[in-house]
Amino acid sequence: MQFSAHQIATLVNGSLEGNPDVMVEQLAKIEEAKAGSLSFLSNPKYEQYLYTTEASIVIVNHDLKLDKPVVSTLIRVKNAYSAFSMLLEVYNKMRLDKTGIENPVFIHPTARIGKNVYIGAFTYIDKDVVIQDNCKIYPHVYIGENVKIGNDTTLFPGVSVYFDCVIGERVIIHSGTVIGSDGFGFAPQDDGTYNKISQIGNVIIENDVEIGANTVIDRATMGSTVIRQGVKLDNLIQVAHNVEIGKNTVIAAQSGISGSTKIGENAVVGGQVGIVGHISIANGSQIQAQSGVNRTIADSGKKWSGSPAAPYNAQMRSQVVYSRLPELERRLEELEQLLLTKELSK
Amino acid sequence: MQFSAHQIATLVNGSLEGNPDVMVEQLAKIEEAKAGSLSFLSNPKYEQYLYTTEASIVIVNHDLKLDKPVVSTLIRVKNAYSAFSMLLEVYNKMRLDKTGIENPVFIHPTARIGKNVYIGAFTYIDKDVVIQDNCKIYPHVYIGENVKIGNDTTLFPGVSVYFDCVIGERVIIHSGTVIGSDGFGFAPQDDGTYNKISQIGNVIIENDVEIGANTVIDRATMGSTVIRQGVKLDNLIQVAHNVEIGKNTVIAAQSGISGSTKIGENAVVGGQVGIVGHISIANGSQIQAQSGVNRTIADSGKKWSGSPAAPYNAQMRSQVVYSRLPELERRLEELEQLLLTKELSK
Amino acid sequence: MQFSAHQIATLVNGSLEGNPDVMVEQLAKIEEAKAGSLSFLSNPKYEQYLYTTEASIVIVNHDLKLDKPVVSTLIRVKNAYSAFSMLLEVYNKMRLDKTGIENPVFIHPTARIGKNVYIGAFTYIDKDVVIQDNCKIYPHVYIGENVKIGNDTTLFPGVSVYFDCVIGERVIIHSGTVIGSDGFGFAPQDDGTYNKISQIGNVIIENDVEIGANTVIDRATMGSTVIRQGVKLDNLIQVAHNVEIGKNTVIAAQSGISGSTKIGENAVVGGQVGIVGHISIANGSQIQAQSGVNRTIADSGKKWSGSPAAPYNAQMRSQVVYSRLPELERRLEELEQLLLTKELSK
Repeated sequence: MQFSAHQIATLVNGSLEGNPDVMVEQLAKIEEAKAGSLSFLSNPKYEQYLYTTEASIVIVNHDLKLDKPVVSTLIRVKNAYSAFSMLLEVYNKMRLDKTGIENPVFIHPTARIGKNVYIGAFTYIDKDVVIQDNCKIYPHVYIGENVKIGNDTTLFPGVSVYFDCVIGERVIIHSGTVIGSDGFGFAPQDDGTYNKISQIGNVIIENDVEIGANTVIDRATMGSTVIRQGVKLDNLIQVAHNVEIGKNTVIAAQSGISGSTKIGENAVVGGQVGIVGHISIANGSQIQAQSGVNRTIADSGKKWSGSPAAPYNAQMRSQVVYSRLPELERRLEELEQLLLTKELSK
Repeated sequence: MQFSAHQIATLVNGSLEGNPDVMVEQLAKIEEAKAGSLSFLSNPKYEQYLYTTEASIVIVNHDLKLDKPVVSTLIRVKNAYSAFSMLLEVYNKMRLDKTGIENPVFIHPTARIGKNVYIGAFTYIDKDVVIQDNCKIYPHVYIGENVKIGNDTTLFPGVSVYFDCVIGERVIIHSGTVIGSDGFGFAPQDDGTYNKISQIGNVIIENDVEIGANTVIDRATMGSTVIRQGVKLDNLIQVAHNVEIGKNTVIAAQSGISGSTKIGENAVVGGQVGIVGHISIANGSQIQAQSGVNRTIADSGKKWSGSPAAPYNAQMRSQVVYSRLPELERRLEELEQLLLTKELSK
Repeated sequence: MQFSAHQIATLVNGSLEGNPDVMVEQLAKIEEAKAGSLSFLSNPKYEQYLYTTEASIVIVNHDLKLDKPVVSTLIRVKNAYSAFSMLLEVYNKMRLDKTGIENPVFIHPTARIGKNVYIGAFTYIDKDVVIQDNCKIYPHVYIGENVKIGNDTTLFPGVSVYFDCVIGERVIIHSGTVIGSDGFGFAPQDDGTYNKISQIGNVIIENDVEIGANTVIDRATMGSTVIRQGVKLDNLIQVAHNVEIGKNTVIAAQSGISGSTKIGENAVVGGQVGIVGHISIANGSQIQAQSGVNRTIADSGKKWSGSPAAPYNAQMRSQVVYSRLPELERRLEELEQLLLTKELSK
C-alpha cells in the first residue's frame, strides 16, 4: 500500500509544505523513520529529530516554527498526534480488512451468520449460534452452542467461547483467550475427595470491551459472569465465576479476580494483582501492580498498594521503614544496652 | 428442554405442593429467578425470597414451615441443596451430551478409538493414540503420538497433549491447556549461551483430575511429571518438569510450581502462589494466596502465608506490626531523644 | 526403536564391558531404570544405584572403579553426562522427525514454503508468509500475513503468530503461545471511556530463542518488540509492547514485563517477577522469583529481590528482621515502660 503526500494531506485535512508527490508505504516514529516512512511530531522534546529524520513525510502541528530547513515533506494540521492516530487506525483497518468464509469451516446449519462477516478456515460454529454483521472470526476459533455475538466484533485466532455465552458489539478478543470455561467449584467430601459443582451459568461481555491474549473468563455457577461496557482486560488475566467488572475498568496483565467479587466502574488495576473472592471494589479505585486485595474497598477513587493491600501513602511509608529495618533493630539494641548499663551502674 | 413439576418431583423423589403441570426450562438462584425457572431454598437467610420470587418451581427442605402463601409450586425433599445439585448435574450432562465423529478430523490409522466417543471437527489424533470409551474430545484438540486417554474423559476445545503422555479416567481438561510441553531445562555454556537439555519424559494424569483453562504442565526431563488422583487445578497454572502433585490436592489460579517439587496429598494452595523447585510440601498443607514457598514444609496440616512463606499466625503478627512501622520508628526516635536529653542534662 | 549395547558404544565412542547384544528401548534415571533401559552414572552420590539398578546398559565415566560386580552392561566414556545428553538429543530428534504437508491445511497461494518442511493438518498460513527450510509447523498453528520464519524453526500445536512478525532460525515455540497480539494501549477520554491506540508494529524473534507454552508477546505500537538471540522464555510469560529482551537472557514462568522496558543481556529473571514499564535492566542482572522491579537497574551483574526489588543482601537482612517484628515491638514497649517508670519515680 502506497500513498502520496497529497493523498495524506487530503485525508487529514492538512496543508502541505514540500513535495506533494513523495510516496510513503509505512508508519514510523520520527527518531527511527527511514525513507518511505510517514511520521509525526507532537511532543516538543522530539523536535530535534525533525532536522535529522529520514522520514519522507512528517505531520506537524499548525503552529510549529522551523529553526532550519527540513528535508521531509511537512503536513501541518491542528493536532499532529490526533491526525497520526487517525491514520494508524485507517492503516490498521485496511491491513485487517477481510470478509468471506474460508474453507474448510464447520458451521452448524442452525447457526445464523450476518452480513459482511469474515470466518477463517478451521473455525467451528455450533448449533444455534448467532453472529451479527461485520464480525471478523479468525481461524481456529471455537464458538459453542447458543453463543450470541453482536455487530462489528473481532475474535482473533484460537479464541474459545463455551456454550450460552453472550458477546456484545465492537468487542475485540485476542488469540488463545477462553470465555465460559467452568468455574472452579468443588464440594469437599468426608473421604478427602471433591465433587464437582456443575457450572451452568454463562459469561456476558458487553459492548466495546477489549480482551488480550490467553486470558480466561469462567462461566458463572448460576447466573452470569459479567464484563461491563468499555472494560479493557490485558493478557493472561484470570476472571473467576460470578465476577462482575464495572464499566470502563482497566486491568493489566496477569491479574486474577476470585469468585463472586464485584469491581466497580472506572477502576484501574495494575499487573499481577490478586483480588480475593466475595468482596467489592469501589468505583475509580486504583490498585498498584502486585497488590493483594483481601477485603472490600468501600471508598471510591482511592489508591491501594501492597499485599495485603493498604492505602497507597501508608504503604509507601511502611515500605520505606521496611528497608531500614536492620538499622532500626540496631538502634533499639543500642538503647537497650544504654539502659542496661545504667541499671548496672546504679 | 422443558420439564414439568411432576417430572422433577419424580426425579428428585420429592412431594409436590401446587400445580404439577407448570413447566420450567431453566435453573436460577431464588433471588434472580424469573417465571419458567426452577430454583431452590436451602440457606434460611434466603427464606424471604420464597415469598417474592417469580420462580415457577422451588425445591425446599422437607421440614420448611411457610409463614404465608407462596405463588411457586414447591417440591419438598430431604436436602434441597443436594437435590438441586443433582438436577444441575443432570441438566449439564444433557446439555453437553455429544457423540460421533465430526468432519473434518485427522485420525492416524493406527489410533484406537473406543465406543460412544465424541470427536469434534479439526481435532488431530496422531499415531498409536488410544482413546477409551465415552470420551468427549472437542474441536481443535491436538493429541500427540502414543498418548493414552482413559474412559469418560473430556478434553475441551484447543487442548494440546504432547506425545507419550497418559491421561486417566473421568479427567476433565479445559480449553487451551497444554500437557507435556518441554520442561525449562538449559545448560549454561562458557560463552554465555545455553544448550537445550532434551526433555524426553512425559506427564501422567491420574483418574478424576480436573484442570482449568490455559494451564501448562511440562513433561519430565526423564521419568514423569505426575498429577495424582482427584487433584483439581484451576486456570493459568504452571506445573514444571518432574513435579508431583499428591492425591486430592487443590490449587487455585495462576499459581506456579517449579521443577522437581513434590506436593503432598489433600493440600490446598491459593491463587498466585509460587513454590520453588526441588522441595516437598507436606500433606494437608494450606498455603495462602500470593505466598512464596522457598523451602520444604515437613509438618503436615499447617497453614502458611507470605513471601517468603511463614507459619500463618506468625505472618499475621508481623503483618500487623508492618502496617505500624512508621509509628514504631517515631516511638524509637522519641526514646532516643529522651535518652539523649538525659545524657546532656547530666 | 531398539538399540544394542554395541550400537550405542559406537555412537558415543565408548568401550564396552558386558553383553554387547543386550537391547534397550528407553532412557531412564539410574534409580528408576527397568530392564530394557539405558541409563548413566555421573554424580558419585548415585554410585550406590549402579549395584541395584535393573538398567540393561549404564554409561559411566572412564575412570569409575567398581566395588563389586554389576549386572548391567557398562559403556565407559570420557564424560558420562555429556554422552547421555547427546543420546537424549539423538533420541528426541528421531522421535520428533516429521516432514511433509498433511491434509487439510490452509496455505495461501502467495506463501513460500522451504524444503524438508513439516506442516501439520489444520494449520493456517496466510498471504506472503515465508517459511524457510527444515521447519516443523505442527497442527493448529496460525501464521498471519507477511510473517517470515527462518530455517530449522519449530512451532508446536496451536501457536498463533500475527501479521508482519519475524521469527529467526532454530527457534522453538511451544503450544498456545501468542506472538504479535495488540499491545495494551488506550487513550483515556473525558467521559471515562478509552479509545484504542492502533498497534501497527511487530515482534522480532532472533535466532536460537526458545519460548514456552501459553506465553504472550505483544506487537509494538510502532517499531518492534524484540527478543534477541539465544533468549529463553518459560511458560505463561507476559511481554508487553515495545519491550526488548537482550541476548541470552533467561526468564522463568509467569513473569511479566511491562511496555517499553529494556532488559539487558545474560540476565536471569525468576518466576512470577513483575517489571514495570519504561525502565532498563542492566546486563547480567539476577532477579529473584516474585520480585517487583519498579525502577531502572543501572549496575550490571547484581542480585535483586523483593517487591519493590532491592539489592539481595539488604532485602535478606530486612526480611529477617520482618519475621521478628512482633518481638521488636515488644522490646520497644519494654523500654518505654522502663523509661516511664523512671520518669514517674523521679
